Amino acid sequence: MSPSPSPSKRYYFDWAATAFPDFPGLNPAFPEDPGAEGIFGNPSSLHQEGRRAREYLEEARSRCAGVLGVAEKDLYFTSGGTESNALALHSFLLRQGKGQILYSAAEHPSVRENCAVLERLGREIGIIPVGPDGRVSEESLARALEKYPSPRLAAIMGVNNETGSLNDIAALSAVLRRRDRPVHIHCDLVQAAGKIPLRLGAWDIDSASLSAHKLGGPRGIGLLYLRRPLSPLYSGGGQERGVRPGTENTAGALALARCLEDHVLPEKQEAAFKPAQDRFKRLIRGLGETGRCVLIPGDRCPEDPRFSPWILQAAFSGIPGEVMVRALDQAGFAVSTGSACSSSEKERPVLAAMGLDRKRSLEGIRISQGWSTTDGEIDLLLEAIREVLRFL
Amino acid sequence: MSPSPSPSKRYYFDWAATAFPDFPGLNPAFPEDPGAEGIFGNPSSLHQEGRRAREYLEEARSRCAGVLGVAEKDLYFTSGGTESNALALHSFLLRQGKGQILYSAAEHPSVRENCAVLERLGREIGIIPVGPDGRVSEESLARALEKYPSPRLAAIMGVNNETGSLNDIAALSAVLRRRDRPVHIHCDLVQAAGKIPLRLGAWDIDSASLSAHKLGGPRGIGLLYLRRPLSPLYSGGGQERGVRPGTENTAGALALARCLEDHVLPEKQEAAFKPAQDRFKRLIRGLGETGRCVLIPGDRCPEDPRFSPWILQAAFSGIPGEVMVRALDQAGFAVSTGSACSSSEKERPVLAAMGLDRKRSLEGIRISQGWSTTDGEIDLLLEAIREVLRFL
Repeated sequence: MSPSPSPSKRYYFDWAATAFPDFPGLNPAFPEDPGAEGIFGNPSSLHQEGRRAREYLEEARSRCAGVLGVAEKDLYFTSGGTESNALALHSFLLRQGKGQILYSAAEHPSVRENCAVLERLGREIGIIPVGPDGRVSEESLARALEKYPSPRLAAIMGVNNETGSLNDIAALSAVLRRRDRPVHIHCDLVQAAGKIPLRLGAWDIDSASLSAHKLGGPRGIGLLYLRRPLSPLYSGGGQERGVRPGTENTAGALALARCLEDHVLPEKQEAAFKPAQDRFKRLIRGLGETGRCVLIPGDRCPEDPRFSPWILQAAFSGIPGEVMVRALDQAGFAVSTGSACSSSEKERPVLAAMGLDRKRSLEGIRISQGWSTTDGEIDLLLEAIREVLRFL
Repeated sequence: MSPSPSPSKRYYFDWAATAFPDFPGLNPAFPEDPGAEGIFGNPSSLHQEGRRAREYLEEARSRCAGVLGVAEKDLYFTSGGTESNALALHSFLLRQGKGQILYSAAEHPSVRENCAVLERLGREIGIIPVGPDGRVSEESLARALEKYPSPRLAAIMGVNNETGSLNDIAALSAVLRRRDRPVHIHCDLVQAAGKIPLRLGAWDIDSASLSAHKLGGPRGIGLLYLRRPLSPLYSGGGQERGVRPGTENTAGALALARCLEDHVLPEKQEAAFKPAQDRFKRLIRGLGETGRCVLIPGDRCPEDPRFSPWILQAAFSGIPGEVMVRALDQAGFAVSTGSACSSSEKERPVLAAMGLDRKRSLEGIRISQGWSTTDGEIDLLLEAIREVLRFL
């Protein structure tokens, strides 16, 4: 069999931007109920349609809580990861008290840019540097705390969306808990869910964000975990116990519950992990054999425990990342540069924060895989990359 | 045939809380494309999957713009009406300048409560009173402008969600445009879309909100019309030209476009209007014949041009609204008291603003109909109300 892909066939390696939908044929409007009546009501209505919709919504919440090992009352449905991050951060506009809002230099734009808005509104902001591996070390965090001695909030992501760099949330939260004053610890877990073990209870964090569409679910639904309720800046009809206003997306919540059960449940996540690692081993070995690929960071190795085996950042010397993305796209392969949320940016702030020079950072491409990725697809991707390198 | 409903059959008269889904069997994840590949990509991705998703998203925007008679570039997809209102209001936290943020006393909680948050954050807030009919008159607005002489924003809804009261947006915006300084005019059109003619262009307004699920579409998708872009408080990946962050809900946007074409297109809205008015005439006549019903306001008449023929507020002397809602629910009929978004509130701020005393306002129930409501269902509802009145 020829390894060349047929031109019409597509190979998807951009799961970090959005996962391949895992509910073909499943109508998220009525995911578990054949009759429309069962789910369409407004969960805040008092009548039977409303009460049934409420039951579905609370069933979804209960199932999510079961998967995540947290209390149902600590989960709030939102429209997605970006909104969950914004809700947690902007609630600090309504809180009294002085001190700094800290975030790691590798955070997603929905954390970084909301912190910039808070700064415009007079809040003190501080950045926790990351190392060349894109991770926040305990030492780096301790140094940041010397510089910003009165932190009110620290936002540190679980898995970086551009490099797959993993943060040791338990260790970092222990550093933050050594402070005299309480610090709100917020974790963007959008790229961690289903990819690495989640230990929301044990990590001793105050809030966390998840998104359905990164897990094969529909757009427009996500979760905010909150150990204690907060006062949201955006207000409305009091839904989600006052934390997230707007008519509740019952169908989305049920679809999200199913995604969590399919991919985030510890045994499901564990079962998917090793095969993903093996596929990335194959990919990293193959990339090395091209002789022109530099992983980002350069010392990342195949089974490196510092990185999620679902996201890889790599550069090809002399080829701008955008050119590589377009060439592979032409060949049938979907990869990206950085975050889709900033694909129009001409800079790579996350890679810059890791100490990469601008030229190298603009050569970076992101290859991200999912649960249905196969060895055969990895081989076809490698072949396509070799083909591109012959011409570029 | 007996007019008594069979106990298992349900009759839905709470369309203002959420419409009966108008896409049975339609999967909003892939509404127009049988293959998952066509729509699932992240519209911000550069590759083919992303570009195709972008095309779908822009097609949806173009179809919505066509229905609403506005420019595509002035429409932004959001997660719903509540978020659209919040986006418009909270952007004023980032704007320089002094002056008042005004809202009508009958606004939805997602306007009223967000204004309360703005007040907590130091912005000057003013209320535009409504008359006994729940409407803002030109005189009332002019008086409010004497009291608050430097308005920056005025939020006036198109159709009230509890009473169906219509505001004459064109006339009110003309009053506001007579000021020396520009005023941002925001219209919550969630209950107006598909129910009364929308004239976004001619009304001379600056922003407006719409929601899909009030039009038979899925939850989690809505529109914000903006004549000029604004700086949103919640920030993120720059999606929707920086106005609304978060991965775009392509499937939701397409479903919304279809809802607008089905119900908001001028000829569709017009065709549905007269039959709705006729059904409400039947309802209002029947309620009058019970001898115990008082419409809210009391002088509302069957073809009253001051009210939308899709929403009716009515009280039954001596029967608390919540009791009536429960009794009708038992009989198979879904009606509500006020907004589902505040169904747990023990007060009725909108009715209080109309000058109703507390006792009468707590007797109010909302009956709202939709495009599939029939004369037969109206008759059954009247029969059920008569039955309830025999016992209460």
